[in-house]
Amino acid sequence: MSIRYIAFSGGVGGAKLSLGLARVVPLDELLIVCNTGDDFDHLGLRICPDLDTVTYTLAGRADRVQGWGIDGETWSCLESLAQLGGPSWFRLGDRDLATHLYRTQRLREGAGLGEVTAELCHAFGIASRIVPVSDDPTATLVATSEGELAFQDYFVRRHCEPRVTGLRFTGAANARIHPQLAAALGSPALQAIIFCPSNPFLSIGPMLAIPGMKESLKDTGKPVIAVSPVIGSQAVKGPTAKIMTELGMPVTSLAVAEYYRGVIDALVVDEVDREGLGAIRDLGIACEAAATLMKDDQDKMQLARMVVEYADVLAR
Amino acid sequence: MSIRYIAFSGGVGGAKLSLGLARVVPLDELLIVCNTGDDFDHLGLRICPDLDTVTYTLAGRADRVQGWGIDGETWSCLESLAQLGGPSWFRLGDRDLATHLYRTQRLREGAGLGEVTAELCHAFGIASRIVPVSDDPTATLVATSEGELAFQDYFVRRHCEPRVTGLRFTGAANARIHPQLAAALGSPALQAIIFCPSNPFLSIGPMLAIPGMKESLKDTGKPVIAVSPVIGSQAVKGPTAKIMTELGMPVTSLAVAEYYRGVIDALVVDEVDREGLGAIRDLGIACEAAATLMKDDQDKMQLARMVVEYADVLAR
Repeated sequence: MSIRYIAFSGGVGGAKLSLGLARVVPLDELLIVCNTGDDFDHLGLRICPDLDTVTYTLAGRADRVQGWGIDGETWSCLESLAQLGGPSWFRLGDRDLATHLYRTQRLREGAGLGEVTAELCHAFGIASRIVPVSDDPTATLVATSEGELAFQDYFVRRHCEPRVTGLRFTGAANARIHPQLAAALGSPALQAIIFCPSNPFLSIGPMLAIPGMKESLKDTGKPVIAVSPVIGSQAVKGPTAKIMTELGMPVTSLAVAEYYRGVIDALVVDEVDREGLGAIRDLGIACEAAATLMKDDQDKMQLARMVVEYADVLAR
Repeated sequence: MSIRYIAFSGGVGGAKLSLGLARVVPLDELLIVCNTGDDFDHLGLRICPDLDTVTYTLAGRADRVQGWGIDGETWSCLESLAQLGGPSWFRLGDRDLATHLYRTQRLREGAGLGEVTAELCHAFGIASRIVPVSDDPTATLVATSEGELAFQDYFVRRHCEPRVTGLRFTGAANARIHPQLAAALGSPALQAIIFCPSNPFLSIGPMLAIPGMKESLKDTGKPVIAVSPVIGSQAVKGPTAKIMTELGMPVTSLAVAEYYRGVIDALVVDEVDREGLGAIRDLGIACEAAATLMKDDQDKMQLARMVVEYADVLAR
């Protein structure tokens, strides 16, 4: 095991930096760890949105237009399902469905989620190592003004409209850190742990809720570096900004730093937030600015390179 | 309950006569009963090929080119599944998949197969009544030169290649006649029971294997009329002829009559087999010839009309 960098990732934003890291870090030295809090069962299928987004992205198969799902997607099944009066709120594409059918079948056969993920990665021609944070099922529940909602109910069916009052990570208390992650955390080559610019509450939070995770990160003695998903009081994508506001936080990288306080050693913020570096450093968290908006693959690799170099500086 | 005619049907051939009957018999007077022996679980989905073929056919949605499945079908999911190394021997179309996902979900929710079938018929705009022969799962096992095979393994995966030495209907012994069928069998309006030109061994046989079925048919005191699937020593479609040969029978309507002996009162054979009428009548089975090859909807309606009129003559 020669893992030097462990990247914790949620969906779209995390997948972008993961792709950058996969391009600039040698294959054997990177482990990408995906959030499983968004996972759910739908129509009897086990769906793992973050794992799939990272897989499709690293395979170069992510749909660039809609920002999620797989390229060349078709919608015959969903269209027919809607005609039958079946549930159509979750946008299951025909090709995406194959991933879920395959995964569900393999899990039913007794394979672990990490094992299935490795099989899917192999089938998609991905050499990078991608693992779920745990083989044990976890589920994020969103406490809202309309009661507690399952994550996908909140995120997809309700388009993040209800006001968030809190989050609960079910299953997390009984989840065990994935053995490959545990091994990587003990890797003598380990240089740093990277939190991708994913939603701190919905994507990174559920992973930190797994018993022993925070302690394990600390025990590595290596720097934990987060990339802030907030750029100039806005989140690039998804409900991060809305949730921060609803939870009574300002939408700033400083608030992200405060949320991660005690877990991270450093935060990378966007160039436009350079003036906030001081306040973050005052929290005892190292901080640097970089171009964090990743529009193309060059941007992703550039940010990945900056994070890795920063990690190497911090690790000294 | 004003059911006058009950039609027992398998897949394609049975669906053709079922469509004809649905066009010539008033809606409330016809009950179409489908074989469930071909049903199986695949990728966690409950698949009911005969019910689906009859449903798609009656909805005018059957694919006319390939002779099975639904029109306007697309194959993205199967294509992707094959790329993932998943099982692709069973040709699951994207639109067909919606039917299986819907059915499986409803069964998981506790609905009976008959109830789900009614919902699917409604969604497909079918006013005719279609029921599975039983809500209880049954499965046909094919004893072959290569050992016992699940029906779809034999039929689809192995393209009916292994030599058949026998058939076994698992689940049949514990299956109960569908309540709607039981009620129809007791209908005071009942005129006749019709066995569509389906495979006697694989499609009608599994239904006759349900405890009490043969007795219930006899107890109605009404004629049971089968339409032979054999035309001039050939079966129109499927493995009927091959199986008859392998089971040591001549491929003739006489052999079909002998198989059904004790259950049917009359057999309708094709015009080309008119010379065999005498031998069948010698078995104590009434017999008439008709044009049984159904190439278009007119053929289907014409055969349906003939069978219904024949039934009315026999019922006197």
